[in-house]
Amino acid sequence: MNAHLDSFRTDATALIGEAYVVSGADAAPFEVDFWKQYEGKAAFVVRPANTLEVAGLVRLAAQYRVSLVPQGGNTGLVNGGIPDGTGNEVVLSLQRMNHILAVDPAGDYLTVEAGVILADVQKAAEAADRLFPLSLGAEGSCRIGGNIATNAGGVNVLRYGMMRDLVLGLEVVLSDGSILNLLKPLRKDNTGYDLKQLFIGSEGTLGIVTAATLRLAAPARERVTFWLAVATPEAAVELFRHSRGVFGDLISSFELISSYGVEAACTHLPGVRRPLAQPYPWHVLIELAWTFTTGLRERAEQVIAKLFEEDRFIDGAIAENEAQRLMMWRIREGQSEATSKIGYVVRSDVTVAIADIPELIQRCDAFTADYGSDAAVLPFGHIGDGNLHMNFVVPREKAKELAPRLFEQLFVEVDNLKGSISAEHGVGRAKRDAIVSRKPPEAMVLMARLKTTLDPDGILNPGVVVAVPTKG
Amino acid sequence: MNAHLDSFRTDATALIGEAYVVSGADAAPFEVDFWKQYEGKAAFVVRPANTLEVAGLVRLAAQYRVSLVPQGGNTGLVNGGIPDGTGNEVVLSLQRMNHILAVDPAGDYLTVEAGVILADVQKAAEAADRLFPLSLGAEGSCRIGGNIATNAGGVNVLRYGMMRDLVLGLEVVLSDGSILNLLKPLRKDNTGYDLKQLFIGSEGTLGIVTAATLRLAAPARERVTFWLAVATPEAAVELFRHSRGVFGDLISSFELISSYGVEAACTHLPGVRRPLAQPYPWHVLIELAWTFTTGLRERAEQVIAKLFEEDRFIDGAIAENEAQRLMMWRIREGQSEATSKIGYVVRSDVTVAIADIPELIQRCDAFTADYGSDAAVLPFGHIGDGNLHMNFVVPREKAKELAPRLFEQLFVEVDNLKGSISAEHGVGRAKRDAIVSRKPPEAMVLMARLKTTLDPDGILNPGVVVAVPTKG
Repeated sequence: MNAHLDSFRTDATALIGEAYVVSGADAAPFEVDFWKQYEGKAAFVVRPANTLEVAGLVRLAAQYRVSLVPQGGNTGLVNGGIPDGTGNEVVLSLQRMNHILAVDPAGDYLTVEAGVILADVQKAAEAADRLFPLSLGAEGSCRIGGNIATNAGGVNVLRYGMMRDLVLGLEVVLSDGSILNLLKPLRKDNTGYDLKQLFIGSEGTLGIVTAATLRLAAPARERVTFWLAVATPEAAVELFRHSRGVFGDLISSFELISSYGVEAACTHLPGVRRPLAQPYPWHVLIELAWTFTTGLRERAEQVIAKLFEEDRFIDGAIAENEAQRLMMWRIREGQSEATSKIGYVVRSDVTVAIADIPELIQRCDAFTADYGSDAAVLPFGHIGDGNLHMNFVVPREKAKELAPRLFEQLFVEVDNLKGSISAEHGVGRAKRDAIVSRKPPEAMVLMARLKTTLDPDGILNPGVVVAVPTKG
Repeated sequence: MNAHLDSFRTDATALIGEAYVVSGADAAPFEVDFWKQYEGKAAFVVRPANTLEVAGLVRLAAQYRVSLVPQGGNTGLVNGGIPDGTGNEVVLSLQRMNHILAVDPAGDYLTVEAGVILADVQKAAEAADRLFPLSLGAEGSCRIGGNIATNAGGVNVLRYGMMRDLVLGLEVVLSDGSILNLLKPLRKDNTGYDLKQLFIGSEGTLGIVTAATLRLAAPARERVTFWLAVATPEAAVELFRHSRGVFGDLISSFELISSYGVEAACTHLPGVRRPLAQPYPWHVLIELAWTFTTGLRERAEQVIAKLFEEDRFIDGAIAENEAQRLMMWRIREGQSEATSKIGYVVRSDVTVAIADIPELIQRCDAFTADYGSDAAVLPFGHIGDGNLHMNFVVPREKAKELAPRLFEQLFVEVDNLKGSISAEHGVGRAKRDAIVSRKPPEAMVLMARLKTTLDPDGILNPGVVVAVPTKG
């Protein structure tokens, strides 16, 4: 370890206590991501208890020119939250900052520290008869600060937007250790540049989110969930258009699942059964919700019956109870888990225009066919957002060789359709170089200028999102 | 005129044609805002036809160190879109850039040039059986570029968010004349910093918005509008809470109007009549909408009847037809116009927590009482957003003297309630100094750093939002 790191460690220990500066085996969980896709090596891990400690640590990092890697629940998918392999980066874990600071159901907001687990934010809202709408597969582990830093998406984006749309106020520690407190709960505030936007989705490279004030919604009091089978992705897209036209924003989720994905879930996830007796090529999971207590099911059934008469789907089931509803969601949310029992899952996350989804699936089918039994394509996800997780299942021993090739081929097709190679997961280190040629040069220049303006010494998550030469 | 301005004019004329570089009487409409609150003096006005011409003009401005004031519909309320009094600033009007470039009802978006009038964007969406939800009093005159530059609000924010929430992509000319094209129509795109956020709400000080891709929503097919009378602002806030709990996001507007405001509208606006025969102290206009074609009225009437039984309001009317609905809205939207027939209207735009609205009104009543017949307070607006236009009507001849005192007293009360002195209107020059002491010092420092990073020579709308010494 170099002298700067030694000095940083000594001062950090004095600041936050020896118990919260950890290394060796204690640091190991912070060096590999939750999905075990990426691994790094930390000099050590600091675990501050509050914003003042974060600020103190950042000041020390600035003083000693030590790189900090902010980390929440460590469930990120793009190698943006664990240290690089040098052993010179320090992980700053926000997990101890897990307090809910305020819940105001009348004002429709809550304020939480960055290390609160997403599911706990949801529960706090629910306890106050409110809804915090962000919902995604990792919600039992991911932390709200990470959700903010990566502008998380999930299954309710169609109705409630992404994380960015749910943030009213932020508290951020800047690269010089100053605390930018923008925690107001106001829905409308046009007094100058909306600075919080800079930090949402910037993956800890421009500042460290330490707390947030988040919007709550009126809770859904009646929810109706359908599982419909269709013959083709085209039919799924058409079904979305027709459903959206009738139901509008009463649709909170509209998800696509393949036959392969359903079979994988039924085979590899304990207790999971098909919602429909017969297998079908494609399935959509539609969830509708409103704040009235009754009447949605009757209306929805009428509409769905009419769509069936019009041959817009070929078979379907309604969730008759919460257990059936959860089963449908388990299949959807368990896609990566189930297929990981079959092989290594090359996980992706792309957007194209909704109308182009069938074309994208077809092109991926075409290039995957060339791999024979070495690769299966598993498209699933938020078809209503134009966002598919176009995953590939490959033999574990060939993952290192095949993953980059599959990504490259997928990204070329996404480029051809003018889509995005990262809809929700972000850039991290994994896609840092891949975005360079895909974004306008003016955008890359401006991103680099923002990075050097906000973090001139390059101490905040260097190498993530954008490569900027550090002065340090 | 100084030599730099002469050279700029010569080159600008060569670039965009003599007919579009105007001064003298032709420039006059660009030197005073639509509401005739502020007046400046332009060196001249340039009226580019397209983005390339804007880019060329900005390059010339950078070369000759000439200050540009971007201007859309010129309906801004905070002196942010007209030149200062020096005669050295050049107005860059976007009004000729008024083309709708694409409408995609299936993809739920449209792409427009910055100079398109908001009402024309709404019409283009409607023609494609879609809804563009931004709606505000000036919609017949304001331009979409100005709406973006000021992050406009309006009467549908409760349901659809502010302008920021409706922007999918932007095209911006930066201070060096480069064109940043971020016009993708994707709902989700986490490939790096979300650069468009920098320009939304930055009032033309960081770049000039030249085009935008905007989100469309499913159109409301049934709409129900109520006009309810309540005794106090407290009752209005309680009514909002109860309505919101039952209707959730089916409420698109929830607006407060005072007795004084209703009487002013009935007296001074041609053809306007009271929705309720009797006068009442306070009124709320509630609009509900959904995408089904029938059934909302029956459900809404049941809920409203129950709220009446519970004494949550004292009298009410439902709009039986479009004419009645438009009459209700005419009263709401005509508040400033009607009261301007009585005296000079000191217009404000503040947010507090919704629960604090009654307290704010009471405090404003208290300090206004000291002015005797010299000032009447006229609170109205988006109570569901915590956002009131707390206007004051004063004798025209005393406006210059009284306006600053009233603003100062209002702002102090807003500060005490931890609110915002500009909910939707922005900062401009009018509130530039007032925000300095009200924002965290770290925020002011960061705003100044963003300004110098994005516009190092200070040529874009200098003196607006944030005062930064120019190098030029």
